[in-house]
Amino acid sequence: MFENMPRRVRVVEVGPRDGLQNEKTIIPTEAKLRFIGLLNEAGFPVIEVTSFVSPRAIPQLADAAEVFAAVEKQPATSYAVLVPNQRGMERALAAGVREIAVFTAASESFARANINMTIDESIAVFRPVVELARQQGVRARGYVSTAFGCPYEGAVAPRRVVEVTQKLLDLGIDEISIGDTIGVATPNQVADLVPLLAERAGIERLAMHFHDTRGTALANVMTALQLGIAIFDSAAGGAGGCPYAPGAAGNLATEDLLYLLHGMGIATGINLDAVVRASQYLATLLSHPLTSKYFQAATGGI
Amino acid sequence: MFENMPRRVRVVEVGPRDGLQNEKTIIPTEAKLRFIGLLNEAGFPVIEVTSFVSPRAIPQLADAAEVFAAVEKQPATSYAVLVPNQRGMERALAAGVREIAVFTAASESFARANINMTIDESIAVFRPVVELARQQGVRARGYVSTAFGCPYEGAVAPRRVVEVTQKLLDLGIDEISIGDTIGVATPNQVADLVPLLAERAGIERLAMHFHDTRGTALANVMTALQLGIAIFDSAAGGAGGCPYAPGAAGNLATEDLLYLLHGMGIATGINLDAVVRASQYLATLLSHPLTSKYFQAATGGI
Repeated sequence: MFENMPRRVRVVEVGPRDGLQNEKTIIPTEAKLRFIGLLNEAGFPVIEVTSFVSPRAIPQLADAAEVFAAVEKQPATSYAVLVPNQRGMERALAAGVREIAVFTAASESFARANINMTIDESIAVFRPVVELARQQGVRARGYVSTAFGCPYEGAVAPRRVVEVTQKLLDLGIDEISIGDTIGVATPNQVADLVPLLAERAGIERLAMHFHDTRGTALANVMTALQLGIAIFDSAAGGAGGCPYAPGAAGNLATEDLLYLLHGMGIATGINLDAVVRASQYLATLLSHPLTSKYFQAATGGI
Repeated sequence: MFENMPRRVRVVEVGPRDGLQNEKTIIPTEAKLRFIGLLNEAGFPVIEVTSFVSPRAIPQLADAAEVFAAVEKQPATSYAVLVPNQRGMERALAAGVREIAVFTAASESFARANINMTIDESIAVFRPVVELARQQGVRARGYVSTAFGCPYEGAVAPRRVVEVTQKLLDLGIDEISIGDTIGVATPNQVADLVPLLAERAGIERLAMHFHDTRGTALANVMTALQLGIAIFDSAAGGAGGCPYAPGAAGNLATEDLLYLLHGMGIATGINLDAVVRASQYLATLLSHPLTSKYFQAATGGI
């Protein structure tokens, strides 16, 4: 049953970017840096630290260049940033970024609402970004959001996820992260979609980015692992919430993911206790309890 | 990958018993009845409504006979009760109970702490209980708690779970519910244990009773489903908490389980919306938010 399961998994910590971006509280730059500093002690292979988006669009991330510059870089960690367009890419390159991510969707309505472009327009915008990345030897990741469901359109057909994934691959993207943005996926959907994507991208270039809004994130992780997926995104403490359901969980919590993986004997190189310490600090910054169940059990919810 | 998965699952709602028993708040009898009445609208095949334990041992359940008598029985639902010993069984039979459950453990320390007996003493105490059940045509279920880990002893060897399961089967127990009482299990443990138990009990007589303390309950459900398990215990809203970690989750939430099963195309005959309504009422009785992620997403945590 577990014969295709990887022995090692790469966990991409997205808390400082995808987590904080969706929190209502504006976190001061110093506090972000302390949070990232604590995450550094856990030994992540990748931490997505910020986004070089327009400060007008996302004021929470207006300090992108300052945050990136001030992070104490660990030699074994890649500090990734989100870039929305060529202007953001130029700012990121000027800051010395070595790994970037671009963000689009499998649903037209979500793309329009979230990045104010059609999917094809987003691909066109990413073309010079990825070209710059390739010229500079910068690693490029592509997010395909709403891959299992859209808050506006409902169900999203696997075919549409495959189409946008292929377009990102055609640009020269190194890794595709498939996002269950609103946390609706169940394992059968993962089992339907992943093999179609693996045909195009190769299983080793696919990451899964689950949200735990309805509690199914780790069940989906199990199915993805059984299909050979070896890269998962998560956010310390489960930070990020769900903008469509106040009080509900957002990103899969890194602690819950690590507890599962380590329990299964799958290596990550990441220290779970250190992640809990980072989340304990994060919890002091936010106006609501963190949703990670492991974190709640380990700390009594504090 | 999903070829052994059942097409239909029996969900045993344990909220009124296992849920409320572990809540600090004492719920008035009328409120319990209203909660069970709301659960009745969801169409469960089994609701464990109370426990005929000594009122001194568990004051929350001192009204067992009164609750059982007053529940409006639905023809398609079995109203099960926990009985600790022959005295409790006699009270249950006098009340007209048609399905009972007995509770022991795979860990000696937990049995001692929880039921104040050794495991073998508990089996001896259950012998006349199960004999009475068989004489009266009453269905008998056996709980094996701490099957994956014990708060006092740590890891619990599968061999010990098999031993106590065999002893329960030898008594004539109809169904065995394997409990991850402290919510530590990961799917590899489920994959190791279930086939050993199925050899003894037959897969169709095994139920899994997961707690979601560290977020792994639905991942464990997935693995159990893949092994052919078709009976799962859960509690509306995730009621019950975890007595070993204040603020942490306890029982797997019925809503989260149903969302997964229905999403997978597995029939339960249970109306998820009706469960949410029962949990909304339950939430007004408790002093803390319910931990079900589906419930939080559906209601905004209210």
